[in-house]
Amino acid sequence: MADFVLHEDPRSGNCYKIKLTAALLGLPLSTRQYDIMTGETRTPEFLAKVNSNGRIPVLEIRDGEATRFLPESNAACWYLASGSALIPQDRFDQADMLRWMFFEQYNHEPNVATLRFWLHFVGEAQLSEQQKAQVMAKRIAGCDALSLMDGHLAKHEWFVGDSVTLADIALYAYTHVAEEGGFGLGDYPAIGSWLKRMESLPNYVAMD
Amino acid sequence: MADFVLHEDPRSGNCYKIKLTAALLGLPLSTRQYDIMTGETRTPEFLAKVNSNGRIPVLEIRDGEATRFLPESNAACWYLASGSALIPQDRFDQADMLRWMFFEQYNHEPNVATLRFWLHFVGEAQLSEQQKAQVMAKRIAGCDALSLMDGHLAKHEWFVGDSVTLADIALYAYTHVAEEGGFGLGDYPAIGSWLKRMESLPNYVAMD
Repeated sequence: MADFVLHEDPRSGNCYKIKLTAALLGLPLSTRQYDIMTGETRTPEFLAKVNSNGRIPVLEIRDGEATRFLPESNAACWYLASGSALIPQDRFDQADMLRWMFFEQYNHEPNVATLRFWLHFVGEAQLSEQQKAQVMAKRIAGCDALSLMDGHLAKHEWFVGDSVTLADIALYAYTHVAEEGGFGLGDYPAIGSWLKRMESLPNYVAMD
Repeated sequence: MADFVLHEDPRSGNCYKIKLTAALLGLPLSTRQYDIMTGETRTPEFLAKVNSNGRIPVLEIRDGEATRFLPESNAACWYLASGSALIPQDRFDQADMLRWMFFEQYNHEPNVATLRFWLHFVGEAQLSEQQKAQVMAKRIAGCDALSLMDGHLAKHEWFVGDSVTLADIALYAYTHVAEEGGFGLGDYPAIGSWLKRMESLPNYVAMD
């Protein structure tokens, strides 16, 4: 089996998705840590060797002679979970799982995760004028994403099918720390129950 | 075989991805058109029946008694292409294809497609102050995405492996009309050659 190294910043929910996927699958995963606040993922070496996009997470896959690098959190989760029960085999369910994962990257992460980063790690006083001007729009869009999730979870235990899939893992990562971005999770009771189901899974690991 | 109906606005590159996928696969696809500029995808009926997220594209799949709706352009492409050569079977290549599709939705579409929408369809004079304040950041981020693509395509004919995959289709949709958003494609020669390869594919269809 290949050896896996996660290039990560432990504060990142995108990195945590990959660690949670590996934990639920019982796969060993070592980590190499970077501080995104000080530009450690924008060095010439990182750009040349690990990810020309200058972002973490990146999953390094060491397989015999070959070492390959896979950016994008949800793609790395897909690689690790390939062939496992975390990816449904049914054609519609598999596409529907990806639907929620694209929703996560387009509608959820740029709002829920970005406000957490700005308010919890950067600090409101340090935001640029342009960032400050976007806070309200991101608050509304983040609440819309959480409402959509809550509506779905009011009728379903998991995002797709009858058990946990990568869709749940992808959406759990930043939802369970959304209060750090100023989102009140008490407004979303079905999300609250689903968070508890996630945290009861065998081999669940908490975020650092 | 199921019948497919695409709920779309023909100006949308996200909708076009699905039409191009169906064309390359030789799959029949009928369409139902909405005008996103006048809120036709935000009506109570659309939200209740087609997509609670109020967005197109949505792929409607009519399979015998069952009718199901699949939002998110890249998930709909995945459904249509399931089992075809547009999705590599190799484990790494499949994840790497998804990596480019997530990159497209996170780094490319919100910049390249949004500027096209704002400048070509809404019109610069009609933009809100908040939108105007974001144009420069989206211009820079869009150029970064195009540069990253160009660097990859300078060394590879296709984004993943030796033939066209969904990664190419997803990235082609808004790249080939990026000049409508004010991006000069002459700066990216490897993208230019790849656009020609895309347009030479058997069964290729142009955007409306």
